[in-house]
Amino acid sequence: MGKTIGDIGEFGLIEFIRDRLGEQGLIVDVGDDAAVVATNPGDFVVATVDDIVQDVHFTLDYPPRSVGWRAIASSSSDIAAMGGKARFFLISLVAPEETTFSWFRRFLSGATDFARRFNLALVGGNISNGDSIRVSTTTLGTIPPGHIKRRCGAKVGDIIYLTGAIGGSQAGRIIFSETKNPRLRLAKRHLFPVPRLVEGKILGAVFAVSAMIDISDGFLQDLGHILTNSDVGAYIDIDDIPLFPGVDRFCRERGLEPIEFALSSGEEYELIFTAEEKYASGIEEEIGEEKVIPIGEIVAKKGIFAKRGGKLIKFPQAGWRHF
Amino acid sequence: MGKTIGDIGEFGLIEFIRDRLGEQGLIVDVGDDAAVVATNPGDFVVATVDDIVQDVHFTLDYPPRSVGWRAIASSSSDIAAMGGKARFFLISLVAPEETTFSWFRRFLSGATDFARRFNLALVGGNISNGDSIRVSTTTLGTIPPGHIKRRCGAKVGDIIYLTGAIGGSQAGRIIFSETKNPRLRLAKRHLFPVPRLVEGKILGAVFAVSAMIDISDGFLQDLGHILTNSDVGAYIDIDDIPLFPGVDRFCRERGLEPIEFALSSGEEYELIFTAEEKYASGIEEEIGEEKVIPIGEIVAKKGIFAKRGGKLIKFPQAGWRHF
Repeated sequence: MGKTIGDIGEFGLIEFIRDRLGEQGLIVDVGDDAAVVATNPGDFVVATVDDIVQDVHFTLDYPPRSVGWRAIASSSSDIAAMGGKARFFLISLVAPEETTFSWFRRFLSGATDFARRFNLALVGGNISNGDSIRVSTTTLGTIPPGHIKRRCGAKVGDIIYLTGAIGGSQAGRIIFSETKNPRLRLAKRHLFPVPRLVEGKILGAVFAVSAMIDISDGFLQDLGHILTNSDVGAYIDIDDIPLFPGVDRFCRERGLEPIEFALSSGEEYELIFTAEEKYASGIEEEIGEEKVIPIGEIVAKKGIFAKRGGKLIKFPQAGWRHF
Repeated sequence: MGKTIGDIGEFGLIEFIRDRLGEQGLIVDVGDDAAVVATNPGDFVVATVDDIVQDVHFTLDYPPRSVGWRAIASSSSDIAAMGGKARFFLISLVAPEETTFSWFRRFLSGATDFARRFNLALVGGNISNGDSIRVSTTTLGTIPPGHIKRRCGAKVGDIIYLTGAIGGSQAGRIIFSETKNPRLRLAKRHLFPVPRLVEGKILGAVFAVSAMIDISDGFLQDLGHILTNSDVGAYIDIDDIPLFPGVDRFCRERGLEPIEFALSSGEEYELIFTAEEKYASGIEEEIGEEKVIPIGEIVAKKGIFAKRGGKLIKFPQAGWRHF
């Protein structure tokens, strides 16, 4: 058995974290009462918090790096979904004192690897004793006032776009729980998701984007938030829903319907956004053609509809619920 | 049995919270992916996170209002200790779905009562299922660059000041655990602490204040952070340490030494700050004479010293440790 975090102690852990801090815009770091960061004058501050809880969002079988990575992926995705630039994060870790230092070290690597890749700075945190592991991550971003993309704003006739293929995260979760093999392509999609931080920020600057959200609870549920807040409905082209590679086969092997599976898969972190069709080519130039996938249209009739076998069906707004 | 938070569901709870949001400076509220807030151009952003964990910082015997109050009191105190103005907070709650809605409602009242009293706005949050209750609170503040008060900066010859009497929080914790009576004066001091948010912000603007920290882990330990970071030591006038009313009697009844007890009492949220003696009257004019209590002096020799019975003693830097 290696050292535990109880052996290292709170101040030892803080020293360890301090050596791994980001620096951009950081004025006062974790050694003090609070972090102080600089933002651009005129920009608003975007703030969000998300939790990853042991035995709810992960188990101790998970690579610790994945827990750290997902903690920050999830909350920084929310900043992108507003059209903002994720810049700083604070991590609050509750863990039993028997937690190994090795687990802690790899957990922190996961968070800082993500931060390095996307240019975020870890600026603060807290460590408390508790009976199981819970990670709460607050991400702060900045946004010029005119760039804010809300859930309301979608208008009848707008096209609904997706930034990428879905279904992989949920399939990966199941495959990882069966195989415990973190190297499988689908498992990786679940363990180390790549939210659309760059694309979200660019789409924030595109005036034509009328509403935006990230897929955290599942496509149907998250699109549902746009529809409810915009007081509209949606018609979905089933055949246009892009499936993550391997999801089709994964579903057929298990007797699941691939599209239905993908439409309720959570933690995908692709963005759903709406815009008038005439702006599509302009948006494609900004973020790349392959990331502007039209999958439906905003309609006046409330609900989410699609045609299947020549018949109009209505989807339930199903997805991940936290209770 | 009343309704549980599982009965109300995540979206019901979010609606409930939404009705209780602060509004100052809030551009986009909890219904969206992230909160968007406005800050003053030129100000830095101060950010900190703190946790309150069931069976570590509170038990289910505690008034739920106290849990909400303390969650925000603790992290906003850190903003004041930097010299900043606490403005916004996000609450992340992990709780079992059997938690009663009545507990949740009163918990949230505690947080919003605190926020109303000190002009903070609740701007976001998250709710997750988990096997016990944990509250993680992020507080955001603003600070003009020149107002930042760090732990480093104390100079030999500076006087050490306290903003108020100590010992009450720890005595209150013990008395409440014995009596379960939240109305006793000392119990109140523990259950509903009043951090020095106004004073911290004012002291931030006072150039003469060379270092500042709030007492969260205990006077000796928190003063120790100033000393370590400033590379100095301290001589303490034992007789000048102000005891919270009732602490002296509480200790004598239990055979405890009152000053020693008070010096290691955590969660007091009084501020410790240092400044040259000649500025004392100016500082008194800013925050009131009764809140500028000289209790010692910064010395070159490392450690914390005091005279007792004519003999120089050295204190251990004891206090609350999270592991």
